[in-house]
Amino acid sequence: MKIAILFGGLSFEHEISIVSSIAMKDVLQDDLIYFYVDSKRDIYEIPTNKINSKLFSSGEYKKFDKVYLKKGGFYKISGLFKKEQNIDFDVVLNLSHGGDGEDGILSSVLDFYNIPFIAPRTEACVVSSNKFITKGYAKSVGINVLDYKYFTKKDSVKVDMFPVILKPVKLGSSIGVSIVKNQEELSYALDVAFEFDDAIIIEPFISGVKEYNLAGTKVNGEFIFSIIEEPQKAEFLDFDKKYLDFSRTSKAKEVDLGDKLNLEIKESFKNLYNTLFEGSIIRCDFFVIDDKVYLNEINSIPGSMANYLFSDFQDLFTKVASNLPTKKDIPINFEYVNKIQFAKGK
Amino acid sequence: MKIAILFGGLSFEHEISIVSSIAMKDVLQDDLIYFYVDSKRDIYEIPTNKINSKLFSSGEYKKFDKVYLKKGGFYKISGLFKKEQNIDFDVVLNLSHGGDGEDGILSSVLDFYNIPFIAPRTEACVVSSNKFITKGYAKSVGINVLDYKYFTKKDSVKVDMFPVILKPVKLGSSIGVSIVKNQEELSYALDVAFEFDDAIIIEPFISGVKEYNLAGTKVNGEFIFSIIEEPQKAEFLDFDKKYLDFSRTSKAKEVDLGDKLNLEIKESFKNLYNTLFEGSIIRCDFFVIDDKVYLNEINSIPGSMANYLFSDFQDLFTKVASNLPTKKDIPINFEYVNKIQFAKGK
Repeated sequence: MKIAILFGGLSFEHEISIVSSIAMKDVLQDDLIYFYVDSKRDIYEIPTNKINSKLFSSGEYKKFDKVYLKKGGFYKISGLFKKEQNIDFDVVLNLSHGGDGEDGILSSVLDFYNIPFIAPRTEACVVSSNKFITKGYAKSVGINVLDYKYFTKKDSVKVDMFPVILKPVKLGSSIGVSIVKNQEELSYALDVAFEFDDAIIIEPFISGVKEYNLAGTKVNGEFIFSIIEEPQKAEFLDFDKKYLDFSRTSKAKEVDLGDKLNLEIKESFKNLYNTLFEGSIIRCDFFVIDDKVYLNEINSIPGSMANYLFSDFQDLFTKVASNLPTKKDIPINFEYVNKIQFAKGK
Repeated sequence: MKIAILFGGLSFEHEISIVSSIAMKDVLQDDLIYFYVDSKRDIYEIPTNKINSKLFSSGEYKKFDKVYLKKGGFYKISGLFKKEQNIDFDVVLNLSHGGDGEDGILSSVLDFYNIPFIAPRTEACVVSSNKFITKGYAKSVGINVLDYKYFTKKDSVKVDMFPVILKPVKLGSSIGVSIVKNQEELSYALDVAFEFDDAIIIEPFISGVKEYNLAGTKVNGEFIFSIIEEPQKAEFLDFDKKYLDFSRTSKAKEVDLGDKLNLEIKESFKNLYNTLFEGSIIRCDFFVIDDKVYLNEINSIPGSMANYLFSDFQDLFTKVASNLPTKKDIPINFEYVNKIQFAKGK
């Protein structure tokens, strides 16, 4: 299959999207083409054999073909006669992390232009990218979450118990996240978080909490799961460490939590994925506290697609690409407009 | 100001969007231009002095200029020399009801192309257009909702108590909604609902429940509210009645619920609107049961913008158009990519 990797975007995670996308060259055996969305949201087609991270920091990418979107695909003006050309591929893989990619903007744009893509659809993006909305959704599908408080920029923030973890609602990759141990540290942590977002959530911070990651997808109504991994981490993964994580391609080590917890984590994943996330390969990060499973977060476009968690990522990827959800047929027949005109005698 | 009304779209509410948009000619004193998104998502510029509902049912709209989106606006090829022209306006008013307009697709597209618009941003669209997500969100911001159960197409649906009201999760304007009085009526109601959507919610149906509508917006951090109206209704508003409702321009009658309930309804609106709905004028429909306020639904792009609820809609509209939320500045400086290259010695 020919896969178009769409990456970059107006996002604090722009750079990790670059790293994640380049890693896919080692992960997928498909023919790949690359569409780079720069910080001004201009889109360029980057030749696969030329792609490397320096291209972007140097601005050199601008020498490649600029492309634009129209119904049915990506287009460019090319050749001697400056003819419009529809760029050939089968499916887009949306690998723009954070803003644009995970917040629903690019999924909506691809949907609007009727371009098939692997990624959560708009609704699933919003539910997973905004941590406050994730919490409400998780509770609705019966999944435990840690207690939390939600504050916007104008609210006065009160914390009764320390330590807490303070997170901008909309950012991933631990950007703007702080562990706050006492009242003195709070105002600095708030400044940091509000630099990235207009709203935050504050949760209790549980030192040494066990975290487990499970990736998966649904193909033809059947779930396909990765192994469960206990990610290596420092106090929490900071941006630098997560950044290197985004280029991971070597296989992760499976952890066995026993039948009961293994099953509970998989059932929790199923309830979260539901029908909402169809068309996407996601990674859910869970906490286990006193043998109880809690959702930490949903990564709707995980770094390098969490390929390292699957025994046969290529096979899974091909299945997803070949079984994308289709949009409901909406008949528009002007029955009511005609009725009104008839009533008006027009 | 020059307002571009964007309407139509791939939506079961395509036709009411037409009616709603035409009504705006009598509501707004601004210069208006019209962009019609047809059922194939081709976009046409319809001259304001030519617009009428027949144009669309007859297919005649296709004789007008086709337009397309690019960074910064709507464009068309025009004139003797077939030159590209950026169509002039100040702000888009997204008046596409239901799919495309209210589910976040068009808001994302406008955001992607950096076009200023009045409508909920993508997140607010998703939270309000999917009734299941609305319930979780409402609870998160401390607002009561009626009990509900959520089912997808493949679930076996069990109902213990009748009557219930059965709603497709994603449709507005009462499309696909049924009141089910007993077990016998259930399977037909399910067939109807699942024709429109892949998921439904089922709530207890409370005959004669009092419903109250409040519209409002936030300008520079201050809320501006409409009157509270008790809408006239039959058992519940069916599509035909709601349809006529979408062309409403005559003022509604205020209802006085007493200080306590008036205040509670306004506070509930504030909590729901929060920062999420900034940039939009929405209408929240509440139930009052035993002096307790419950959210029924959030109309994020209400019919004819709920103009009939405001004493001076023009003034409010101008304020919103002049104070749209701006997107956070996201610096992309390639700090990490450079660090990696340095580490690699490249």
